Amino acid sequence: MDLYFSPLACSMATRIAFYEAGYDANYLEVDPQTKRVQNDGSDFFAVNPLGLVPTLRTDDGAILTENAAILQYVAERLPDSRIGAGPGMDRAKLQQWLCFIGTELHKGLFVPLLSKTAPAEAKTYTLEKGLSRLDYLDSYLEAREFLLDHFSVADAYLVTVINWTMATPPIELAKWPNIRAYYERTRARPSIAKALAEEFALYKAELARHKAAA
Amino acid sequence: MDLYFSPLACSMATRIAFYEAGYDANYLEVDPQTKRVQNDGSDFFAVNPLGLVPTLRTDDGAILTENAAILQYVAERLPDSRIGAGPGMDRAKLQQWLCFIGTELHKGLFVPLLSKTAPAEAKTYTLEKGLSRLDYLDSYLEAREFLLDHFSVADAYLVTVINWTMATPPIELAKWPNIRAYYERTRARPSIAKALAEEFALYKAELARHKAAA
Repeated sequence: MDLYFSPLACSMATRIAFYEAGYDANYLEVDPQTKRVQNDGSDFFAVNPLGLVPTLRTDDGAILTENAAILQYVAERLPDSRIGAGPGMDRAKLQQWLCFIGTELHKGLFVPLLSKTAPAEAKTYTLEKGLSRLDYLDSYLEAREFLLDHFSVADAYLVTVINWTMATPPIELAKWPNIRAYYERTRARPSIAKALAEEFALYKAELARHKAAA
Repeated sequence: MDLYFSPLACSMATRIAFYEAGYDANYLEVDPQTKRVQNDGSDFFAVNPLGLVPTLRTDDGAILTENAAILQYVAERLPDSRIGAGPGMDRAKLQQWLCFIGTELHKGLFVPLLSKTAPAEAKTYTLEKGLSRLDYLDSYLEAREFLLDHFSVADAYLVTVINWTMATPPIELAKWPNIRAYYERTRARPSIAKALAEEFALYKAELARHKAAA
């Protein structure tokens, strides 16, 4: 499978899933500003008209977009990794967490806060609405190791999103001790430590590239 | 199953799913301001600490939240309705569309536009980012009847979201003729026409209740 990603973006969750499964994917880096694929200079919009990562090309050439869909597809495709969920309520709970992270945290809270173009008023509005979601998550994570009863792609997504707090100063993780403890122990997991180190290096290279081009 | 809903909110998609399946659910109306359950005056926060609809209580008493998770659970639980998708890429595509509608349209575009408290700057920022998503959807719906190759819970969700354009004047459906045509033919579908008529009446009653309490 080919994974189109940008360093430290939500696509890192799929890299973590591949590392958990021991699967050797083909990684194609998309520059978030130019939307060029760094591997060959091609136009990413030709692959995904929205220009969004992650985008997955399956082994039979199909294109799949949207993080929650890709994560569940990868978990199903690599069942020995045990990062998915069984049918019925197990799968429903996995979907519930993927949906919560995607809508309430990623889109509802972090996208406006991380934006370089969002006006201050938009960020203030976002914070007023969004912080209660972190209270809810903090309460849920008390005395729980993972979101489900085992490590799953929902954890791969959550640690990726919480990692963005390093770039969103209004969100002080110290206020949510259970989330912080979850983040600390989860990012020590080998698959996640490896993904974070690699993508952080690629992110620094991306910043240097943008600076040189400016 | 019990469905906690608010009139014309995204919970209407689950009502449509139940009508498609001919399933007789128990509907519990949540006032979006007071978060009281209208049927018995109880506190909805005791059921879902986030106070968000839809919330589903399954037959064995489990609580499920998040629209995409509930819709897929209902589709799986009532397979004769054929509003879900099979395993593998079929299910992945259903998840892709549920995720796109939930993140890019519902949370990314409509929530800020529908908000009574969002500042004008937040709405302008939202429109600048969000309208390209409607272009993408319009292009996809050209020559397609449904999002998948049959009516599914993703259509139930999409028609519910597009219906909000009646309250978001900056979005003129006339600019996206394929979306408008999809909306017109889909809302004529019996399950959707029935849900829309019933929830519109409940919505008017909700407005009158709020006016009387003000």
